[in-house]
Amino acid sequence: MQDFFALQKQKISAFLLPFLEKKRKDLKRTGDMGGGVCARLKTFVPRGKMLRGGLLVLSYGLFKPGVPAPVIQAGAALELVQAGLLIHDDIMDGDLERRGEKSLFYEYAARAQARKLNRAFHVGESLGICAGDIAFFLSYELLSGLDLPAGGGAGGSTRFGAGSHTRSGAGAGIGAERCTSAGTIPRLIGLVSRELSYVAAAQMLDVYRGAQDRLKLSENDILRLYTYKTARYTFSLPLLCGALLARAAEKQLPRLEKIGELLGIIFQIKDDELGLFGDSDKTGKPVGSDIKEGKKNLYYYYLFGRGGRTGHERLLNLFGSGQAGKKEIEEIRSLVIGLGIQEKINKKVDQRAARVSRMITQLPSGRGGARELLLELLRYNLKRVA
Amino acid sequence: MQDFFALQKQKISAFLLPFLEKKRKDLKRTGDMGGGVCARLKTFVPRGKMLRGGLLVLSYGLFKPGVPAPVIQAGAALELVQAGLLIHDDIMDGDLERRGEKSLFYEYAARAQARKLNRAFHVGESLGICAGDIAFFLSYELLSGLDLPAGGGAGGSTRFGAGSHTRSGAGAGIGAERCTSAGTIPRLIGLVSRELSYVAAAQMLDVYRGAQDRLKLSENDILRLYTYKTARYTFSLPLLCGALLARAAEKQLPRLEKIGELLGIIFQIKDDELGLFGDSDKTGKPVGSDIKEGKKNLYYYYLFGRGGRTGHERLLNLFGSGQAGKKEIEEIRSLVIGLGIQEKINKKVDQRAARVSRMITQLPSGRGGARELLLELLRYNLKRVA
Repeated sequence: MQDFFALQKQKISAFLLPFLEKKRKDLKRTGDMGGGVCARLKTFVPRGKMLRGGLLVLSYGLFKPGVPAPVIQAGAALELVQAGLLIHDDIMDGDLERRGEKSLFYEYAARAQARKLNRAFHVGESLGICAGDIAFFLSYELLSGLDLPAGGGAGGSTRFGAGSHTRSGAGAGIGAERCTSAGTIPRLIGLVSRELSYVAAAQMLDVYRGAQDRLKLSENDILRLYTYKTARYTFSLPLLCGALLARAAEKQLPRLEKIGELLGIIFQIKDDELGLFGDSDKTGKPVGSDIKEGKKNLYYYYLFGRGGRTGHERLLNLFGSGQAGKKEIEEIRSLVIGLGIQEKINKKVDQRAARVSRMITQLPSGRGGARELLLELLRYNLKRVA
Repeated sequence: MQDFFALQKQKISAFLLPFLEKKRKDLKRTGDMGGGVCARLKTFVPRGKMLRGGLLVLSYGLFKPGVPAPVIQAGAALELVQAGLLIHDDIMDGDLERRGEKSLFYEYAARAQARKLNRAFHVGESLGICAGDIAFFLSYELLSGLDLPAGGGAGGSTRFGAGSHTRSGAGAGIGAERCTSAGTIPRLIGLVSRELSYVAAAQMLDVYRGAQDRLKLSENDILRLYTYKTARYTFSLPLLCGALLARAAEKQLPRLEKIGELLGIIFQIKDDELGLFGDSDKTGKPVGSDIKEGKKNLYYYYLFGRGGRTGHERLLNLFGSGQAGKKEIEEIRSLVIGLGIQEKINKKVDQRAARVSRMITQLPSGRGGARELLLELLRYNLKRVA
């Protein structure tokens, strides 16, 4: 499984780096800043795992053999989208580090500081906003330029005739049994755009909640945020994109969407767990940073629900105070285990794992064991902490 | 001319408002923030003049009669892009007002402040970043969903056969003599994306220069910024989009691109002039705000070139100090006239006006006098100040 993703990452990089180099040269026409963003993306993007790009390739493989060039290009587009979101997120969260280096906006801020520019930190944030925007625009340029053969998805046959024009609306599968070439690119772009608007809307909620100390949330509120901020975008979207490119039958799409949501929620809960119990050397982010930033995750929810009245004030001081040190994090860990929260959350994860596992086995097995790879990904996620 | 733009604005609004209302409801699935952005865009977008959307319709009219629905939809998409750019720009420039109301990020900041949230101003900036992103994503959703009839641009005939698949790369016109239906949407999206990456790159340069007190720029540096930050995006892009939708002959595209650049540079220079000599009641922004913000415009360039050594230090104090009051602005106005700068800049404008006027007369006259409207727009721009 990890080999598969490493291989796709290699392929995506091999496509993306020359593209970014070409854009670097092209953007120089505007002056000497835009090219720099492309140069920076060339080192930034390959430092990620390229989970989304890899998943898109995997999904294609469920329905079609081989990995045609447009599939890699679409995977690269998703990785640029991810870069844009991370660049903007780091500004919002004030994260100075990302992927083991300075975050992009902070790099600009540090440079502005070194040159003694006015309001250097704000200059860094402003340049970061533009850089994130550029990553989005480049991503759309890649999607719009997919070279799909006439009559079908990437590498598909031409049995539906050259470019018969059957659009079925972004996302929903109305009308056409299978998507045809003329409509695939617009449909793909519609799907990506709709999903990204959900991500940005969910991020707003996260920002807004993060700035409030005392906040009454339901478990549903939290799971909805997980769904729209992470799960659908990280899992459902690549799975759907791959299926559209492979011209999978329409009935597969809602199934893949749901599989993505379940995998994504498990992934996010495990991420929270890692944030609390993980080894910061391996996770790349300091233990307890979620707590320090006041992130309202499932642990937060159950702690407040079960902490009792006296525990409540104590927790408020621990969460979101920005002051939580080693001792305080230890205290929260003990509470999470002692109050049976860890067990309760694990149970929720297990229920979802069983359900998604069943759903995955209903997918076509795919060439090169694509379906098995998805099951492996699930298992890998489940044991990330243990 | 103003009637034409007012009418297109009406049509674009009539399409855009129900779309935003639909998205407002849809985004509610993510929680209670995303819908609010759409509600806010519903009042924000119609307060603009919708120059870009109107120009797109005008350009379509050069080549085809009528105004089919997809042309209005594409115009609406450009207005959403503009909204996204303005929302992000206001964060970067720290502009608290826009179109006579609180700027979007500042509205969020004020609300966060009223609710005593932590770091309220930063919360406002963060929510503004997301809101701008959402405007971009909605715009792409509109572009991807253009319902073009088989075989041609919006409302075009089918003489090139149903959806024959001839893509000719984003922007450049390689291969296909005319754009066909299958390729029109991807090509349009590629064109928009490429141009937006130029805008963002140019904006970076503007931010970076704005933060430097002493900066040696050539006239070319400034004109290049005008070209990529404003001119091409505001004029060339809508003209090209309209022509693509009308399936204009390929040879028209470079002509429209150049016309757009020239019109746009004139527009920008006149905007600078308004910023210095205009009536703030009419322009909607305080006189001299460019000077206060240290914007490096053509006036800035000539003032420094002609101010002499003693004038230099004085100018440095006036520009970018954030302190320029009425008296200082009066002083700059006198210098601009006394040193013959106004005259020199007017001459540059006139040269360009003559050139673009000649180029416009080479365009087809269009139904409903589209070509004449473009000439009127030029004349209107030229006399905006006088």
